[in-house]
Amino acid sequence: MHETTGTTGTTGKLLAAIAGTGRDAVRGGYSRPVFSTAERELLDWYVGELGRRGLEAQTDRNGIVWAWWNPTGAPPAGAVVTGSHLDSVPGGGAFDGPLGVASALRALDLLRERGIQPARPLGLAVFPEEEGSRFGVACLGSRLLTGAISAERALGLTDPEGNTFADVARAAGLDPAGFGRDDETLARIGTFVELHVEQGRGLVDLDAPVAVASSILGHGRWRFSVHGQGNHAGTTLLADRRDPLLAASRLVVAVREVAAAHPGTRATVGRFQPVPGGTNVIASRVDLWLDVRHPHDAVTAAVVAEISRRAQELAADEGCTVQVREESLSPTVDFDPALARRLTTALGGVPNLPTGAGHDAGVLAERVPTAMLFTRNPTGVSHSPEEFCTDEDAELGSVALADVLADLLTGHSCGTPPG
Amino acid sequence: MHETTGTTGTTGKLLAAIAGTGRDAVRGGYSRPVFSTAERELLDWYVGELGRRGLEAQTDRNGIVWAWWNPTGAPPAGAVVTGSHLDSVPGGGAFDGPLGVASALRALDLLRERGIQPARPLGLAVFPEEEGSRFGVACLGSRLLTGAISAERALGLTDPEGNTFADVARAAGLDPAGFGRDDETLARIGTFVELHVEQGRGLVDLDAPVAVASSILGHGRWRFSVHGQGNHAGTTLLADRRDPLLAASRLVVAVREVAAAHPGTRATVGRFQPVPGGTNVIASRVDLWLDVRHPHDAVTAAVVAEISRRAQELAADEGCTVQVREESLSPTVDFDPALARRLTTALGGVPNLPTGAGHDAGVLAERVPTAMLFTRNPTGVSHSPEEFCTDEDAELGSVALADVLADLLTGHSCGTPPG
Repeated sequence: MHETTGTTGTTGKLLAAIAGTGRDAVRGGYSRPVFSTAERELLDWYVGELGRRGLEAQTDRNGIVWAWWNPTGAPPAGAVVTGSHLDSVPGGGAFDGPLGVASALRALDLLRERGIQPARPLGLAVFPEEEGSRFGVACLGSRLLTGAISAERALGLTDPEGNTFADVARAAGLDPAGFGRDDETLARIGTFVELHVEQGRGLVDLDAPVAVASSILGHGRWRFSVHGQGNHAGTTLLADRRDPLLAASRLVVAVREVAAAHPGTRATVGRFQPVPGGTNVIASRVDLWLDVRHPHDAVTAAVVAEISRRAQELAADEGCTVQVREESLSPTVDFDPALARRLTTALGGVPNLPTGAGHDAGVLAERVPTAMLFTRNPTGVSHSPEEFCTDEDAELGSVALADVLADLLTGHSCGTPPG
Repeated sequence: MHETTGTTGTTGKLLAAIAGTGRDAVRGGYSRPVFSTAERELLDWYVGELGRRGLEAQTDRNGIVWAWWNPTGAPPAGAVVTGSHLDSVPGGGAFDGPLGVASALRALDLLRERGIQPARPLGLAVFPEEEGSRFGVACLGSRLLTGAISAERALGLTDPEGNTFADVARAAGLDPAGFGRDDETLARIGTFVELHVEQGRGLVDLDAPVAVASSILGHGRWRFSVHGQGNHAGTTLLADRRDPLLAASRLVVAVREVAAAHPGTRATVGRFQPVPGGTNVIASRVDLWLDVRHPHDAVTAAVVAEISRRAQELAADEGCTVQVREESLSPTVDFDPALARRLTTALGGVPNLPTGAGHDAGVLAERVPTAMLFTRNPTGVSHSPEEFCTDEDAELGSVALADVLADLLTGHSCGTPPG
């Protein structure tokens, strides 16, 4: 199905082989939700690329796909691990996730071409449901691995069609009983480095192809369900309405007002679903999802508290009620400063940048020394078909990844896990 | 599949046989879009009920299902026709459509029980896509029949999955080449009477089970597409956003403000679809549908013009653009006054009520003398699982329908078509 890619191809060539998979004709870009046909086809391509390099894919009990390059037969502990994810948001770009996976493969090729003799194993990892676009919780695979989410809660999550994560995972060949915190696998990771396309204009403004990450903004998701009374659009007088779509729209306006009053806040409603959603029907309910991020976790909490208070008022004004549920909440993550300095030095002094986007690296950072590299995105746009990375920059990113992996695989190990 | 219903069963018993078909576990109530399995099962039930009464179903080239009771073998012209529809809005009630179909069957039984000798044929009709909930244009079957919509435009309409009406109709066994104005079939209709569950509180407030319709409010649907820039919810500063979901929410608030400033207006946004619709994605586009109704067509036009102007302003304020497309527009329909008086007299002086809901009767009224009967809805709620009609009222409605059909079938004919 995919073009054959020689193990000496560039990062861009690797990505070209999957450029046709999971295109979304309606939204534009790609829709590759976890466990969809598109994401599974990408995984098949990845497993094939591993095989071409003599590596074997192993899926752990949380659905994370591992491969190990371990020429010295060193014990499976303290490895250097790199990787990313293959799932996408609906109508997303080609690079968010796959660039990190392709760069990991390409970096392995470069390490071998350079004749690097690793003192410790190199692990390649692909994490499921990083976007949370199907089951609502981002970084679900890494959260399960570290125990940041319980198996019980994860298994009960549902996708938009009402399928549980347990059922969908089972259909994909995973055993629901196996999900949950996995200290044995975690102990194998000495250092984790994730390469990712930049999702803002930091590198464009600095005119540089690669950066080391300094931190990830704290980030949470909340679901607001506004309940009103479904009724006929033609026969119900304005005075008799309890219209949750009107209350929800006023809430979206309030979200922007509250966010603007707290500088540095990014607050977004991108998913908004009226039920039943008919043209000639006053909705009976609207579900909307609020995404809030801020460098200071206390500000995030204050913003969400104020939005929740406004939601209650706005719903009551329209004779509606509202329920608020926290779906996920991650504090601001400062990546290991010593590791970031080491990578920066290995790359000859590249910029260090914070990011507002969540990543599996942010979840793993609670348990192991973790770093990220960003590759320039000339549009500065992400989670959109406009997201981009030139072939040249993609290759520079892989070279940078190979540089830091070479240092981590052959130099001194990176110390003890945090906490 | 359905319970067997004796031809002497009541209207409530007829409806009980289809109470399990097309239930919507997610939205509540029923989802029976045109050409769906659920609507087709209802049609199978209906065809079976016709057969039990010795009548044969014939589907015309616009997908309208006809049956004729014509014991005198009178020529197929100037018939008295009754009927309704079997499709529903998403999450709709049990009565909107099916009550008129079941009452037509029950009224035929009553006419036969009474030994009525019709001087002209009685036609029973079931119209497809009355709600417009699948292809966006309400009363699509009757509009095709009368030529109120061209076959070309109808065939190109798409459902939410992107299927064209042409393809879906073909899959249901209809020939797309046959769709369009059908004067031969229209000429068979001398008088049309549709019975429908009331969709407001008129009969509840008057404490009466049945009314004759006086008019249908003018009604239109417009699609607003607000275009912005899709981007990452975490990495895009508020100042850099062009968020169509925010602009669209402000538009929904403006819709209520404009409607409230024009008394008697019903303006509704019940369908609101962000693209791509991800939690961590600023939408690139929002499509929303505006439903406006008012007794005076000039007010409807003024309301829509003002909302459109506000939409342009609100979109521009957020760096977005907006496109507005009229999907349908029907002027206020005053039913044939002489026919309404005749029905009112035949029923011993029942109330006359206007309605804000559109019906195939409103479309047919442009071409043939047309009337409607409403049966009491104790909740006053419609297009919702709360829509209701007691068995007793349903039977009273059928008796009233039989009364007016008996008068129309045996008395003087109803004059010439309008216009």
